[in-house]
Amino acid sequence: MKEERYFYVPNADRNNELPPEETTHALRVLRLQNGDDMFLMDGRGNFYHAEVSLATHKKCLYHIKETLPQEKTWRGHIHLAIAPTKHIDRMEWLAEKATEVGFDEITFLHCAFSERKALRTDRIEKIVISAAKQSRKPWIPVVNELESFKTFIQQPREGRKFIAHCYEEIEKKDFFDDLMNGPNERITVLVGPEGDFSIDEVKFAMAQGYESVSLGRSRLRTETAGLIAVTMAQISLR
Amino acid sequence: MKEERYFYVPNADRNNELPPEETTHALRVLRLQNGDDMFLMDGRGNFYHAEVSLATHKKCLYHIKETLPQEKTWRGHIHLAIAPTKHIDRMEWLAEKATEVGFDEITFLHCAFSERKALRTDRIEKIVISAAKQSRKPWIPVVNELESFKTFIQQPREGRKFIAHCYEEIEKKDFFDDLMNGPNERITVLVGPEGDFSIDEVKFAMAQGYESVSLGRSRLRTETAGLIAVTMAQISLR
Repeated sequence: MKEERYFYVPNADRNNELPPEETTHALRVLRLQNGDDMFLMDGRGNFYHAEVSLATHKKCLYHIKETLPQEKTWRGHIHLAIAPTKHIDRMEWLAEKATEVGFDEITFLHCAFSERKALRTDRIEKIVISAAKQSRKPWIPVVNELESFKTFIQQPREGRKFIAHCYEEIEKKDFFDDLMNGPNERITVLVGPEGDFSIDEVKFAMAQGYESVSLGRSRLRTETAGLIAVTMAQISLR
Repeated sequence: MKEERYFYVPNADRNNELPPEETTHALRVLRLQNGDDMFLMDGRGNFYHAEVSLATHKKCLYHIKETLPQEKTWRGHIHLAIAPTKHIDRMEWLAEKATEVGFDEITFLHCAFSERKALRTDRIEKIVISAAKQSRKPWIPVVNELESFKTFIQQPREGRKFIAHCYEEIEKKDFFDDLMNGPNERITVLVGPEGDFSIDEVKFAMAQGYESVSLGRSRLRTETAGLIAVTMAQISLR
């Protein structure tokens, strides 16, 4: 089955029509016709083998021939909360790569030293959908709207919570070693902006139960730190 | 010390003049003058605290005030050999990120299913130098010219050699688990092109002592696979 024939249809099993963006691709680019085979993914763990039941000028209807529930390849839940970089292509890149590696949720944070205060999450959403299709991931990560650091920190969260930062004067554990040696089914990890979190932000997060961690001895750009955090969490949850 | 004031000078301690590219940056962009402080890196493990001794229209001479030998943050040697992607920006991205994460050497391979048969390694070299400066890495990875898969495989290499691929019919170990459980001071790992290595290539490599491995259960793009392989090797050599 060719890669292009994967379509993202939320609640595919309770539906019988491709959404508008997918319809354009199916009809204009791939020129699918009645009876053609296709694969659907609902982003919540299922693929579907389907067939075009009606292709008109503007609509593409389908019927499902087989439901193919997929096994998730990692345990638990990986949530990355990150301050978006000044150059948005670096965040788009991160969203693509983290989806390929495998994670569950991303939140963008507005921090004290943030250089970017707004971001189009609809673009990020398109990227994660495309990367999920490309890497055949039946789960599509949740993309949350930008919110303030303080608001995010104050919300209750299940599982373990980490804040990665570079301050030498604040004691830090090694994120990866810690994950490998402790319970870690649900992981939330915070990565700061180009100028790092402020010390006050780190202390505030720690006071709310976030564990202070280092991602290793390399000096990483924000988007690289985000991907490495996701990769480490992913390895620990395989 | 500001980031921009790091200059790459091979054999800095046996020299007293910035190379041409760095001279332009020092004089035209930063407008350094006699007596200004700067940092040099030789790409082989040393930083130098130096001072501009003469800034003319076209030359920037320095004298070293202090040699600052750095400790490498990982053991051994990590060598990634990878088939370049059709879109070169994906290889440039990989070179930048792998340098940030930390590795020692990259070779580009021409494989049976390669979509790209040529590549400007001078551009990749510039990227790794810039990433090494940015991430304060005193070692600059070696960038080798593109060579054929067969030539590469037939050269003798010290340490452990791995070929990562996606064929289900060929038995594979898990790359990361294997690194964590065995000796691994020198690691060479091969990553194939968009269409993977050919089965014949995998078998040929295995016959030459390459261990057949998987990078996990995710379906990764070539450049992502390259970065994940480097990250896993890096974690195992910390």
